[in-house]
Amino acid sequence: MTEAPETTPSRRALIGWGGAGLALGAVAAGGAVAMARTGDDVVPAAAGTGAAIPFHGERQAGIATPVQDRLHFAAFDVKTDDRAEFVQLLKDWTAAARRMTAGQSVGEGAYGGLAEAPPDDTGEALGLKPSRLTLTFGFGPSLFEKYGEAFGIADARPEALAELPKFAGDNLDKNRSGGDLCVQACADDPQVAVHAIRNLARIGMGKVVIRWSQLGFGKTSSTTPEEQTPRNLMGFKDGTRNIAGTETDRLEKFVWVGEKDGPAWMAGGSYLVARRIRMHIETWDRTSLQEQEDIFGRDKGEGAPVGKAKERDEPFLKAMLPDAHVRLAHPDSNDGATILRRGYSFTDGTDGLGRLDAGLFFLAYQRDPRTGFIRIQRNLALDALNEYIQHVGSALFAVPPGVRDKDDWWGRTLFGKEA
Amino acid sequence: MTEAPETTPSRRALIGWGGAGLALGAVAAGGAVAMARTGDDVVPAAAGTGAAIPFHGERQAGIATPVQDRLHFAAFDVKTDDRAEFVQLLKDWTAAARRMTAGQSVGEGAYGGLAEAPPDDTGEALGLKPSRLTLTFGFGPSLFEKYGEAFGIADARPEALAELPKFAGDNLDKNRSGGDLCVQACADDPQVAVHAIRNLARIGMGKVVIRWSQLGFGKTSSTTPEEQTPRNLMGFKDGTRNIAGTETDRLEKFVWVGEKDGPAWMAGGSYLVARRIRMHIETWDRTSLQEQEDIFGRDKGEGAPVGKAKERDEPFLKAMLPDAHVRLAHPDSNDGATILRRGYSFTDGTDGLGRLDAGLFFLAYQRDPRTGFIRIQRNLALDALNEYIQHVGSALFAVPPGVRDKDDWWGRTLFGKEA
Ligand code: HEM
Ligand code: HEM
Repeated sequence: MTEAPETTPSRRALIGWGGAGLALGAVAAGGAVAMARTGDDVVPAAAGTGAAIPFHGERQAGIATPVQDRLHFAAFDVKTDDRAEFVQLLKDWTAAARRMTAGQSVGEGAYGGLAEAPPDDTGEALGLKPSRLTLTFGFGPSLFEKYGEAFGIADARPEALAELPKFAGDNLDKNRSGGDLCVQACADDPQVAVHAIRNLARIGMGKVVIRWSQLGFGKTSSTTPEEQTPRNLMGFKDGTRNIAGTETDRLEKFVWVGEKDGPAWMAGGSYLVARRIRMHIETWDRTSLQEQEDIFGRDKGEGAPVGKAKERDEPFLKAMLPDAHVRLAHPDSNDGATILRRGYSFTDGTDGLGRLDAGLFFLAYQRDPRTGFIRIQRNLALDALNEYIQHVGSALFAVPPGVRDKDDWWGRTLFGKEA
Repeated sequence: MTEAPETTPSRRALIGWGGAGLALGAVAAGGAVAMARTGDDVVPAAAGTGAAIPFHGERQAGIATPVQDRLHFAAFDVKTDDRAEFVQLLKDWTAAARRMTAGQSVGEGAYGGLAEAPPDDTGEALGLKPSRLTLTFGFGPSLFEKYGEAFGIADARPEALAELPKFAGDNLDKNRSGGDLCVQACADDPQVAVHAIRNLARIGMGKVVIRWSQLGFGKTSSTTPEEQTPRNLMGFKDGTRNIAGTETDRLEKFVWVGEKDGPAWMAGGSYLVARRIRMHIETWDRTSLQEQEDIFGRDKGEGAPVGKAKERDEPFLKAMLPDAHVRLAHPDSNDGATILRRGYSFTDGTDGLGRLDAGLFFLAYQRDPRTGFIRIQRNLALDALNEYIQHVGSALFAVPPGVRDKDDWWGRTLFGKEA
């Protein structure tokens, strides 16, 4: 990890908080503007953990872009059936997201000096760097079920956006599942990610409500294989055989929705599966090293596949036990199915029985969940790992293509034409 | 924030995980050893966020040492009434803490290559830097109530370690309150803090059980006034008038238990008050800027006291509203009472009503809670801030002096003599 270059702007109050103190200068964050995207989706990992990731582009950032260290993920339910009001919210959210990802406060100064009004921005990210914040937006199946008619989008529902089937071993909590909309906030500073979700919730007040949210404190996968592979809470390197952000051909094939996949509004987008997976870490910690390694089909220190010496060596599946996780999850066992993993470790206090409520908040992007997550997860029904984990939350979202420029907004390809 | 110097050791497996992969070299973390403490408690903030903070010293680290960015705090209940077994646990914990704070794995290689045994360390911090990890240990009042007789420590209970009184507005959840023991893990990398608590819990299996635990994602106070003051989730700079780690005179006066304060085993220690304070941030966010500033008695942008221009200007209390937080909390309103604040922001998902379950995990160190937290908190009964917050968890711990050297251990001053 390198630090941000000196030129990275810190978050500035453009709203002119006055009070007795010296007003903060209304300095346009020139550095961030200078970094505005030029067209490609690949941001060099070397950009540093304080830098800004371009918000505008063909694809949404936060998928193939380098994985940041912290996450705040929120699922929202929609509370208005007024199409115009909902579309206005999407535009307002986009404007706020554009500013926050550039390291700026929400608001253009509308409330500047107006002490009688609530501030435009909640303020806790003032002075912090952009911290590679990305905000990635999606629509859930329930939006189409509940508001398909009211919003005139019933016919636009993708076939790929069916509810996920029930899988063996699922023990889903509906309060941690589903959602009409989602926003995935990733940043290298958790305060920046939390600030972003909170301000979107604030802007959406009365129109949307947070259904559930999840903090993740450590990435478990990366899209930058040149960096050290992160370890999950089972102590294993995770994400070794992930799709890299630079593999444009594999991204096209497995992650981005193609022109012909349909519907047209999803072209250039992706589908996101989110699963809260609880780990029984106390039981895991009492398991022998040999058994742990057998379960994954990789060794714990180096992360090499069974019978191989190095992490990046090609796995030889037949050398693994038949129920090894890597063997069952590998494309060769799943008609080639391949997903981009982008999950985070979580620890949410204790469970009332003295055990840490910890695990993996699994996030996977794919061109089609039916040939991606669903295909693989079905094959994992026999996974030896299942003795130590349980899926307790689940959601699926259609993540539309990127916001192209200043006039574009989240969901325009779906809502842009009059109903 | 600066990055760690190149010489900072990363966490090494000293336990020789074998498997099919290349064994990790059993490299002693020479850099960490070279940093072993030399006697003073003040670690330069410039040490960098990857560095190691010395574990040995007159005082425990994690109090006056520079505040790290992330927290995992755990309260444990004791499950054994066997004194010898409990003392052995304290020694085992100390040995593990000594290694983890130096950036090393738990265990000296005892299980090296023994694939049939569970690993000595859970592994998820392998390859990560020491990240300024500090582990700060304390005893709760309930330890003396429950095990005072069995452990032969009933007479050693400090008067200062009475249960905290009930305060106006308290709405305490017993599942987030109390605890026989506590460990405060602070680090610049949350994975390092979580790893530490988890491994202590693992080592304590059968002897202690986690009662509650709390993650904090952003510090709200610092002991290094030369750095930018962090902001809390209300958007205000927090910790401006905190005790700095370099103010040895004020630390002696307000934070460290003196020789004559009694009992002798606490000399050089401190008392920790932990309060989980929920913020009603949705209501706060609808409050006007003027009202927000009136409530604190400081302005939001700069953090200056009412009527003053700069954050560090001396507050003029009479210029503030009578119920302003700063006015009521200031030493001049509390017979000079002064505490060292070391709290963290938290966000634990949502509360089932679509609101973020967010707030301040308040941590304060003091020489005596009766003339510290209790004195001030009583005065805050009329605090204008109370409309926007609620105390939902509470605990008090006696934090013994530091672990002096390799042969010393947590709690030796209390348990070192035969009962
Ligand atoms: C707590 C649950 C899980 C843990 C701890 C876990 C851990 C791991 C680890 C350590 C690896 C090997 C390193 C690597 O290539 O990344 C791996 C590989 C993989 N996992 Fe998981 N995983 C979990 C759940 C899942 C789920 C639910 C899926 C998808 C349904 C999945 C799909 C994959 C895939 C596709 C691979 C790569 C296989 C290959 O190409 O060799 N994992 N996982
Ligand atoms: C969510 C709850 C709280 C929030 C948001 C909060 C916030 C703040 C802020 C913004 C300041 C001004 C800047 C500074 O000097 O640090 C401050 C000062 C202070 N607060 Fe709090 N505080 C909270 C609870 C408490 C509690 C429970 C106590 C102790 C019982 C406390 C004790 C103090 C003290 C001693 C000062 C410094 C006063 C001075 O010397 O000027 N605070 N607090």
